Amino acid sequence: MSAIDGFWAVIPAGGAGTRLWPLSRSSSPKFLHDLTGTGRSLLQGTVDRLTPLVDDRVVVVTGAAHEEAVRGQLDGLAESAVVAEPSPRDSMAAIGLAAAIIERLDPDAVMGSFAADHVITEPDAFEAAVRAAASVAYDGWLVTLGIQPTHPSTAFGYIRLGQEVPGHPGCVVAEAFVEKPAADIAEGYLATGRYRWNAGMFVARPGVLLDLLGRWHPAFAERLRVIAADPSRLEEIWPTLPRIALDHAVAEPAADAGRVAVVPAGFGWDDIGDFDSLAGLLEHDLGHLTVLGDADAVHGIDASGLVVAASGRVVHVVGLDDVVVVDTPDALLVTTRARAQDVKQVVAHLREEGRDDLT
Amino acid sequence: MSAIDGFWAVIPAGGAGTRLWPLSRSSSPKFLHDLTGTGRSLLQGTVDRLTPLVDDRVVVVTGAAHEEAVRGQLDGLAESAVVAEPSPRDSMAAIGLAAAIIERLDPDAVMGSFAADHVITEPDAFEAAVRAAASVAYDGWLVTLGIQPTHPSTAFGYIRLGQEVPGHPGCVVAEAFVEKPAADIAEGYLATGRYRWNAGMFVARPGVLLDLLGRWHPAFAERLRVIAADPSRLEEIWPTLPRIALDHAVAEPAADAGRVAVVPAGFGWDDIGDFDSLAGLLEHDLGHLTVLGDADAVHGIDASGLVVAASGRVVHVVGLDDVVVVDTPDALLVTTRARAQDVKQVVAHLREEGRDDLT
Repeated sequence: MSAIDGFWAVIPAGGAGTRLWPLSRSSSPKFLHDLTGTGRSLLQGTVDRLTPLVDDRVVVVTGAAHEEAVRGQLDGLAESAVVAEPSPRDSMAAIGLAAAIIERLDPDAVMGSFAADHVITEPDAFEAAVRAAASVAYDGWLVTLGIQPTHPSTAFGYIRLGQEVPGHPGCVVAEAFVEKPAADIAEGYLATGRYRWNAGMFVARPGVLLDLLGRWHPAFAERLRVIAADPSRLEEIWPTLPRIALDHAVAEPAADAGRVAVVPAGFGWDDIGDFDSLAGLLEHDLGHLTVLGDADAVHGIDASGLVVAASGRVVHVVGLDDVVVVDTPDALLVTTRARAQDVKQVVAHLREEGRDDLT
Repeated sequence: MSAIDGFWAVIPAGGAGTRLWPLSRSSSPKFLHDLTGTGRSLLQGTVDRLTPLVDDRVVVVTGAAHEEAVRGQLDGLAESAVVAEPSPRDSMAAIGLAAAIIERLDPDAVMGSFAADHVITEPDAFEAAVRAAASVAYDGWLVTLGIQPTHPSTAFGYIRLGQEVPGHPGCVVAEAFVEKPAADIAEGYLATGRYRWNAGMFVARPGVLLDLLGRWHPAFAERLRVIAADPSRLEEIWPTLPRIALDHAVAEPAADAGRVAVVPAGFGWDDIGDFDSLAGLLEHDLGHLTVLGDADAVHGIDASGLVVAASGRVVHVVGLDDVVVVDTPDALLVTTRARAQDVKQVVAHLREEGRDDLT
């Protein structure tokens, strides 16, 4: 299979989160880590997955603090392929700037935006979905990939599917984006068969994305295009851009306006939001310990769950089920898969204590 | 209160055990560690507790491998106060050698033997019991301190109490030493009120102890006296001594012969056999984490149990009750108080794997 003509990959690499502490830190966010045990970081895995579709047409948007680490992990990429944001201003600014840059470089481009810290299984199904999405996007749609839910998750937003898009069999109009639901609501969504998970993967012509943004936030779109035309104005203009997610700035109002199409996607996807999610992703032997890192250093007796062995020490677990042990050189976390969401409280505590060096 | 005339303290400091791994190792056994959070090791605490009763009449018997560490911790003691065993040969050889040495130094001595790795609360009650035991021992008895059981422990041996010793009110003859019982048997013992825990604390004239040994093991007693008379023969004779505990070699047959007296003792005692025992000893705030080490480095959310913070790292525990986390520079243990006994399996596993460096 060859690359898709004129197709560009935008990879926003930002947002540390706090629920994967102490593995992921603001100084070393999760996209820089190998969380899949493949020897490649999530960022590298994302680039690896997209390269066959775009050749060298990649733009990674990351924070200035991570620019050096990102370039270090992606040493095959051109200098211009990494764009550093002066400060974090959420996903609309990051992806919108990439769109404005690509719009100038390649007026016929279609771009797809894929987060640097998600995991995708079944790469062939991913590639097929992206090819389908690109062909719909050429016709002027803002296209999103709708992930087939595997369970009534309350951690993800959903997309409600509408009528088929004329001329694009299997592709449907997005009736609406809906926020993370309560558990009973999520079960209702799955029962209808009309809902997909919103993985935040958007495919569009850069000009279409920016024009849609301009419809609701005209100054925002204009400023992004000014920066792309004159990069020397980045530092001046960037702090004036709204902090808003692309979903809220463009995708939701565009869906209301009937401008969003959904390509239902059959690949496995996970945003690895916490250690429970990571354990489920890595687990291959139910009832035993799953190890990320040096498996030879870890031993369990009547133990199951996840051990992240990242300190070089031996780790022994006796008589605990569904435990989570994250062992790093300067910090140790011991919790359970059921309490994985509460790890953010640990980070909040450390910040209250002034231990920003550890977060 | 002054020291007891002619009273010597013998402190056997040997036996690493394996249930306090990775804190206690064969290279650094538990008596060298501060397990009470007082800033003093168990060995130092034992010497501190006995010094008021003996002044400088102390003999510490330890393995050659630990001689330097023991001398380092007890730098106020005379050179001759530390005796190094060429190899471990169990408690009869260790305590018997000390008896033979003291017998030559001080023919009128009474000695008491107290393990280097036990914890005693209520030191005044301990001192009173030792004074009482010494006065009975002067009359030729082998005296043991019988600990008032606080629960039907299956981890300790018991002593069955008999008739009062004539002339020593409150002191009774030991009818028998009984092995660690099953739980229902232990409950029966407590119900009778006639049983005490055997803490392995023996008080006797050195000559009485050696003569009792000579009654059942004549060559053993003779060889110990040969070594004491000519220390240059230690290396030659030591490997020929039987590996046997003092309880089996002397105390049990002497009790059968009606030669053992028991001073019922009212102090709190623990041999800190495992992390459950250590947690119970240190616990002062039920339902919260108990910390041994740097308490500022440890934080729990909905957590209880014991954290040993001995690596300099921060340790965070979320959503686990009665957990045990032992964090050392080269090894981490995560288990529960209920599974504390099974830590010995971890050490067995490490030895099978050839990781003697860690045990």
